[in-house]
Amino acid sequence: MKLSARTVKTERYPIHIGEEVFTVLQKELKHYRKTKSAIFLLTDSNTFRFCLPALVSKCPELGKAVVITIDSGEESKTLRNAEYLWKELAGKQADRHSLLINLGGGMITDLGGYVASGFHRGIDTIHIPTSMIGQIDASIGGKTGVNLDGLKNQVGTFFFPKGVYIWPGFLATLDPKHLRSGIAEVAKTALVKDEQFWSWLTKRSIEEMLAIPFEERFWKDLILKTIRIKQEIVSNDPFEHNQRKLLNFGHTIGHAIESIALQRDTPVLHGEAVAAGVICESFLSVEQTGLDPVELQSIIAWLMPGFGKLPLIYEDESVRMDLMQHDKKNRQQEIRFTLLSRIGQGKINQVCDPVWIRDAFRNYYDL
Amino acid sequence: MKLSARTVKTERYPIHIGEEVFTVLQKELKHYRKTKSAIFLLTDSNTFRFCLPALVSKCPELGKAVVITIDSGEESKTLRNAEYLWKELAGKQADRHSLLINLGGGMITDLGGYVASGFHRGIDTIHIPTSMIGQIDASIGGKTGVNLDGLKNQVGTFFFPKGVYIWPGFLATLDPKHLRSGIAEVAKTALVKDEQFWSWLTKRSIEEMLAIPFEERFWKDLILKTIRIKQEIVSNDPFEHNQRKLLNFGHTIGHAIESIALQRDTPVLHGEAVAAGVICESFLSVEQTGLDPVELQSIIAWLMPGFGKLPLIYEDESVRMDLMQHDKKNRQQEIRFTLLSRIGQGKINQVCDPVWIRDAFRNYYDL
Repeated sequence: MKLSARTVKTERYPIHIGEEVFTVLQKELKHYRKTKSAIFLLTDSNTFRFCLPALVSKCPELGKAVVITIDSGEESKTLRNAEYLWKELAGKQADRHSLLINLGGGMITDLGGYVASGFHRGIDTIHIPTSMIGQIDASIGGKTGVNLDGLKNQVGTFFFPKGVYIWPGFLATLDPKHLRSGIAEVAKTALVKDEQFWSWLTKRSIEEMLAIPFEERFWKDLILKTIRIKQEIVSNDPFEHNQRKLLNFGHTIGHAIESIALQRDTPVLHGEAVAAGVICESFLSVEQTGLDPVELQSIIAWLMPGFGKLPLIYEDESVRMDLMQHDKKNRQQEIRFTLLSRIGQGKINQVCDPVWIRDAFRNYYDL
Repeated sequence: MKLSARTVKTERYPIHIGEEVFTVLQKELKHYRKTKSAIFLLTDSNTFRFCLPALVSKCPELGKAVVITIDSGEESKTLRNAEYLWKELAGKQADRHSLLINLGGGMITDLGGYVASGFHRGIDTIHIPTSMIGQIDASIGGKTGVNLDGLKNQVGTFFFPKGVYIWPGFLATLDPKHLRSGIAEVAKTALVKDEQFWSWLTKRSIEEMLAIPFEERFWKDLILKTIRIKQEIVSNDPFEHNQRKLLNFGHTIGHAIESIALQRDTPVLHGEAVAAGVICESFLSVEQTGLDPVELQSIIAWLMPGFGKLPLIYEDESVRMDLMQHDKKNRQQEIRFTLLSRIGQGKINQVCDPVWIRDAFRNYYDL
């Protein structure tokens, strides 16, 4: 099945979703074999072991690709690894007509996209996202990046892949906590833009959802709906001047939490941080943008049983504020949030009273 | 004086040239002071000393910019320095609404442009090129890059500045050999596209040219003519799919020479390498694309007295071939040249017999 992808400016790329994606990819690769000087395949230690065999069996053309593998985990999303990959590519005779395929979660598609965007000023790249967060978020929209000194995505580019191939079957390779992590981004997407989708999503608890087999239509629908919303927002504002900021809901606080955790060598998953961020920023939304407290409670009631409470976020208030000030959405050291005026409607560029920010953390802590 | 710049795709930026450019810049900066969170100014140890004082006196608004300085020389154009600059920017509270101004030669505008393109996925940047090669080539056209393991511009982006400000007066700060180096690029530009310009240029010897004061109209004309040709080519093919490759004449061999020299810690100037590359590739052009031997002789007769002969290029034939194979213009390890069919007319995508390539080096050596 193919999602007829909307166009992101002059850059157009198809997003394929479903059981048959590798039939499409196999065909594409036969074409690339004629036009590309070489095909490289980036994996991490997990996707090398758990995803690559299935991929090659479904898409034998990839058996000939040059595989490069790095350690798994967000700690690998560094400039040092980008440099390592550029040197690997150069050493393996890659040129500007080479193709880089990224097989992995958001770490791999962010890093691989960044590497592709910089090698010889840009080579073609394809994403095969294997995690929930990769399939519904990281691989869509053309953002690439690496972390710098523990600050998330401080360095990166806007660079569009030639195609994205999403096979829900890869979700079976995930630890349930990674799957849950992805669901936090799905929830965020629904909350800022589509009340109906939120209702559909929250009919089941997160635990009930996790019990559904990946062949079932449910997962394809969930991925498709999330991507459609994201694509609509991104295609209207690819470089995040305005509406794309909607997607940052939950992320100002979420990124600060994630950065603190990373700096302490006790990383949390992106989605775990976002789930906490969504709850904190929903508290803020009640104060700042008039979110109905009843809606706040329904957000908490659905997210908390699935995610539990992160222990670390109440500590180090000054560190947190400092980290939020590094957030890329800011201007002149004001912290700018995307908040909710109601479920299904986000509001960008909200500057909040620091007291309310502190209270939002406290309210979360007191849940 | 202002060159009404042609548009590079949807990206449009003005190139200002002449005595009055800093009056224009001063006005722009008053505007930026209101819209930008902070203004950073990148210099190298030479431009900090020899160009910054003149710039600040002509453009007092820049007295408030945060100055960051790195060592001068092509050896500084590294990923390590890019990382250093990203950390400096982050540490000095830069955000995505900051502006980075690059004051220096091609090394600084390439590196600074690269840093700007990656920081928070792209911040606004302005180039103030101070070298001949910077003024007529490196700062024009949106290419950024760093070297990797001595391989030139292996990593980089296409990223367009908000404006380029060219004051010929800065050329007075250059060692004559740097000025000469820039003239090699001027010659190359004329050779691939504009016979009339070549005739105008070669009316004087290079030594006579170097004696002309920088306030004279000659320099502004030379810069303007060169930029107009480059802009015309670049605006038709910003991402170098076709015609932009014309500008690579002299560079396949020139880059190989430059890389060998850099790896041996005896760097040559880019233009010195290009002058040698232009001569070698003109020999090749006689064999491959029918350049008239009389025209070949006139190219040699004008360039050789100005540049002399580089001693190192006849050595290490295998290294040279290997380096040329890393050149970004190649496909599938074929070496692709841009050559001349006559003066004023380049021809792209020329695959040459390795024997002819060897002979071209020998012919140069035998001059």
